[in-house]
Amino acid sequence: MLPKFESIFSIDCVIFGFDEGALKVLLIQRNDPPFENWWALPGYFVEKNEGIQEAAERILFNFTGLTDIFLEQFYTFGDVDRHPQGRVITVAYYAMIRISSKDNLHPNTPFVKKAFWCPVNEIPALAFDHSLIFEKSLQRIRRKISYDPIAFELLPEKFTLTQLQNVYEAILNKKLDKRNFRKKMLSNGILKELDEKQHGVAFRAATFYKFDRRTYNKLFKKELTFSKE
Amino acid sequence: MLPKFESIFSIDCVIFGFDEGALKVLLIQRNDPPFENWWALPGYFVEKNEGIQEAAERILFNFTGLTDIFLEQFYTFGDVDRHPQGRVITVAYYAMIRISSKDNLHPNTPFVKKAFWCPVNEIPALAFDHSLIFEKSLQRIRRKISYDPIAFELLPEKFTLTQLQNVYEAILNKKLDKRNFRKKMLSNGILKELDEKQHGVAFRAATFYKFDRRTYNKLFKKELTFSKE
Repeated sequence: MLPKFESIFSIDCVIFGFDEGALKVLLIQRNDPPFENWWALPGYFVEKNEGIQEAAERILFNFTGLTDIFLEQFYTFGDVDRHPQGRVITVAYYAMIRISSKDNLHPNTPFVKKAFWCPVNEIPALAFDHSLIFEKSLQRIRRKISYDPIAFELLPEKFTLTQLQNVYEAILNKKLDKRNFRKKMLSNGILKELDEKQHGVAFRAATFYKFDRRTYNKLFKKELTFSKE
Repeated sequence: MLPKFESIFSIDCVIFGFDEGALKVLLIQRNDPPFENWWALPGYFVEKNEGIQEAAERILFNFTGLTDIFLEQFYTFGDVDRHPQGRVITVAYYAMIRISSKDNLHPNTPFVKKAFWCPVNEIPALAFDHSLIFEKSLQRIRRKISYDPIAFELLPEKFTLTQLQNVYEAILNKKLDKRNFRKKMLSNGILKELDEKQHGVAFRAATFYKFDRRTYNKLFKKELTFSKE
């Protein structure tokens, strides 16, 4: 027999983007009583007859208009008091996507007043434990960036070394030495230099690079923990 | 207002150990109707007023007698039909511990008939979607072993290179070339050779090694994805 207490579950999404030199996260402003005007991560209850991944995609689309996002589950939050209305555990997902300030977000649910890209250093007070969820996702990508080339998921296909350094600095939340950074990034042949240069800039135009995933896989995909192959 | 459907959640634990040359997982035989005699991962429902991590520790202790295990959450399974009795989502945890065939497991709940260490190549049919949960945990540690020295959590403090190779082969599920393996493992100074040798063996006694975590951290803990520092 199943236990008799009612517990509800939800999903929440932490969607990262990089734009105008800043790491950003997708926030929504809720419109549903008693939470009108509260800032929050896009998230809501899972329905009775849907799987959780399905729910995450549906909710993200309804709350933001975004589709075809590769959502990855990263943690389930289940503290007893995390939600004011009762026992709600939430399964949190994250994604890192390419965005541009020219893109518009299109919420299409009465629950959401607006959706926008918020620089991670300017996040307002968030509903429930969403600040905790956000922090944990940031820890996850900070760890991941040391063994997975996730920075390239945020950047356009062609990027400058300055943009690449900005992404690392934004994720790691620290300044890196420019010369050292360039030396490390260029020493492996992972970045392919392109003939193009930046247009319409007042200063000396920087070179564009592309991420060479095949070379990366050849050099860095390894099975053993510390093989230098 | 919270939605009105009843959903229950549970936790499940995948505990790995390495013993007698084989990678093993902790299984239990259930004793609760209608699941008497079913083989399963140790897991059960979370109670109304307890957090999920707390529940995982409590259930693991009751089902196996194990305490002080560092349980790490790895995935939440929420397919609509995963449990025959209704909507049950389960939060799955895993751990890698040192075990010895001399250790006894001590279930102390009427729900469990017995607990035992099962070689991963001999796992019987399991309850619900526990085979799926197990498979996913195996994928997780397979990925993790390429960037984290988890093999050493399974081995005794002093181990031979053969034992180390066995752990890698068991996790990766493939035979590795012995000479290459030894060369890679010994080339970094991560393994400290000890003066001791194996006792009581009929063949040539192998050398014991110890994992030098400090050297490992110095060499391999890096922030940037592909820095060679």
